[in-house]
Amino acid sequence: MNAVADETTRLLEDAARDARDAAHALAVAPRARKDDALRAAAAELRAREAALLAANAEDLAAATGLTDAFRDRLTLTPARIDAMAKGLEEIAALPDPVGRVLSEWTRPNGLVIRRIAQPIGVVGMIYESRPNVTADAAGLCLKAGSAVILRGGSESLRSALAIHACIVAGLREAGLPEAAVQVAPTANRGFVAAMLRAAGLIDLIIPRGGKGLVTRVMEEARVPVLAHAEGLCHTYIHQAADHAMARSIVANAKMRRTGICGATETLLIDAAIAPALLPAIVADLRALGCGFRADERARAIVPGLDAATEQDFRTEWLDAILSVKVVDGVDAALDHIRRYGSEHTEAIVTQDDAVARHFLDRLGSAVGMWNASTQFCDGGEFGFGAEIGIATGRLHARGPVGLEQLCTYRYHVIGTGQLRP
Amino acid sequence: MNAVADETTRLLEDAARDARDAAHALAVAPRARKDDALRAAAAELRAREAALLAANAEDLAAATGLTDAFRDRLTLTPARIDAMAKGLEEIAALPDPVGRVLSEWTRPNGLVIRRIAQPIGVVGMIYESRPNVTADAAGLCLKAGSAVILRGGSESLRSALAIHACIVAGLREAGLPEAAVQVAPTANRGFVAAMLRAAGLIDLIIPRGGKGLVTRVMEEARVPVLAHAEGLCHTYIHQAADHAMARSIVANAKMRRTGICGATETLLIDAAIAPALLPAIVADLRALGCGFRADERARAIVPGLDAATEQDFRTEWLDAILSVKVVDGVDAALDHIRRYGSEHTEAIVTQDDAVARHFLDRLGSAVGMWNASTQFCDGGEFGFGAEIGIATGRLHARGPVGLEQLCTYRYHVIGTGQLRP
Repeated sequence: MNAVADETTRLLEDAARDARDAAHALAVAPRARKDDALRAAAAELRAREAALLAANAEDLAAATGLTDAFRDRLTLTPARIDAMAKGLEEIAALPDPVGRVLSEWTRPNGLVIRRIAQPIGVVGMIYESRPNVTADAAGLCLKAGSAVILRGGSESLRSALAIHACIVAGLREAGLPEAAVQVAPTANRGFVAAMLRAAGLIDLIIPRGGKGLVTRVMEEARVPVLAHAEGLCHTYIHQAADHAMARSIVANAKMRRTGICGATETLLIDAAIAPALLPAIVADLRALGCGFRADERARAIVPGLDAATEQDFRTEWLDAILSVKVVDGVDAALDHIRRYGSEHTEAIVTQDDAVARHFLDRLGSAVGMWNASTQFCDGGEFGFGAEIGIATGRLHARGPVGLEQLCTYRYHVIGTGQLRP
Repeated sequence: MNAVADETTRLLEDAARDARDAAHALAVAPRARKDDALRAAAAELRAREAALLAANAEDLAAATGLTDAFRDRLTLTPARIDAMAKGLEEIAALPDPVGRVLSEWTRPNGLVIRRIAQPIGVVGMIYESRPNVTADAAGLCLKAGSAVILRGGSESLRSALAIHACIVAGLREAGLPEAAVQVAPTANRGFVAAMLRAAGLIDLIIPRGGKGLVTRVMEEARVPVLAHAEGLCHTYIHQAADHAMARSIVANAKMRRTGICGATETLLIDAAIAPALLPAIVADLRALGCGFRADERARAIVPGLDAATEQDFRTEWLDAILSVKVVDGVDAALDHIRRYGSEHTEAIVTQDDAVARHFLDRLGSAVGMWNASTQFCDGGEFGFGAEIGIATGRLHARGPVGLEQLCTYRYHVIGTGQLRP
């Protein structure tokens, strides 16, 4: 066992050392070269469609006893391969996040100080058996000037390697180091543990997947983590809400897609408006196939709703279920959100500016929305072009993580011989 | 033992819960109230000078077997108390970092998105027996809208509690929650371990102290850490350097103060300029009391220098010693810095713009300087007004950490009923 662990650690150290060298080259690569690599990789994905489908078929054949949802996420199709290629082309079209001057000022002694966006260095990406994440994460890290070590779920290893071969071909065509994008050289589970321990070798771990994966990464990591944990999002209908707007926002926030982290899981509704509005909201959602877990006050207004337990208000349903609670005003809504929320995204629906400002100012969440659907919490919808995830921690980046958030910064200080007194 | 550990954990959990409540209030406190608290605390420090000196005298009396340097850092004097008070007043005079709109844009669907500076929440500060850090850290966190739990070295506990009482009095006078600034309620060493494990209760740990302390915190923490690790800074003299400028910069960068993290530890000098310049640099520094650890090529140019071992180039001297190496051009200098440096601060001295740009572009360090002393790496010198430390990691903040860097951000999204398609 120790020999296996030592060997796994050695494999990680070698990969990380190669990645560091590649990161130095990538950090100063001109935009055109990175974009050439992305476009060439996209062309390779399209050209090798048959090989990708064959590798994926082997993964699927070997993967027995999995849920339908798992198999669906694992499955590649010609349309999905084309979508991966398009994704890389879209990343190529985005502005280069590296080297942006974030701010610049001159000190009284004449020193010019510039804060400049810089690549993070070596990123470790840990994700489940979703082949498309291999292409997305590689593309985003490459454009952001960081090398990446990709460790996807072992069930998707053949697919990941086939996709990786296309990206390596793109790097080679553009004259960039192949080690800039690496797939974990072993399916050994100890490799993830080695990544999490690799302080100094890996600069940032990004976990992407279910709660279990993310929790394990956050607990074990000795390396900074940009975690996408829970999205227990709330929509709060204030008593001064426009009824039609509230109905359409709740339906969209809950039911447009129930499985994404920005989906609303709990509806908070003011007691003053609930009798007039909640029956219509329930009818709207029922017609869309949604079930309910409601507190006593809501059940008194709309008979026949299932009773909510306290645990229901702590549950990220990711399904067609809505927790419902009647509250007495904005501060009660904020109290509930503080107690049960995950600081991801919450929305208020109201026509009252002062109340909206009160709500937004006191919210600790990464994203606070006013008169909009919580499902807008998304890198694409924010205008970032692409995202590697939604960050739910408090440091470095919060909310959608696009190319800019995948960068760090440094300072350049330009002098003419100044000495510190 | 387990009972003690449980009790320590319980104390930390209670402190963190109180801190969280206080942080909610601080996050929306108007600037004037925070500044009132800071100024009132400064007045209390001055008014209670005798009590502070008495508490400090008890600490000093109990602290036996310590080095002179340690005792000096632990000692309070009337001048040092006044300096702490002035420090708080200076923080009060700085702009409020909370609520700044960092960027704002409008999406094609009409959504207005604002990125807004926000307090981090609950900060845990772990430091050595330096009473002044108690006042500095409390003042900076308070102004940045975060609650803070302060855990200084146990030898300074009485001094810290006396200073803390002044700050609490200031908070009370301004109507802010007293739990916004707390001193660890026990000198039990397990309290630090409990802080480091407190994921979800403490949002950020800031260690400030020697390498041993910082390394332990980085290894054990389950909470994000903003670490100030080593400052193994380099000054590189390029062959096109102005001789007089190079001499004055090296003397300042090494000898102005040898114990600060921005002090230059290694001089790299081009072979093409070393015969003409190195003897003068050595003479300058010798006159200031500096010793040398030099490679063979340097010793061939200036006889009598002590020979450097490889380990010397990995050593943060924090003393009047300079490692010296002769290199063949800018890329050799960059190679050395990558291999031996700590990504803190490096400087190049040259009159050649293209070489300077080449050097700065390829440097991974938090701060790269051109024709300036590395000792300028300092929050005050950067214009931040005050700093809580220098961050040497790659995430969230790099270089001097002032009020802005003690904030995180969130988004406000303002709509008019938009639904996600």
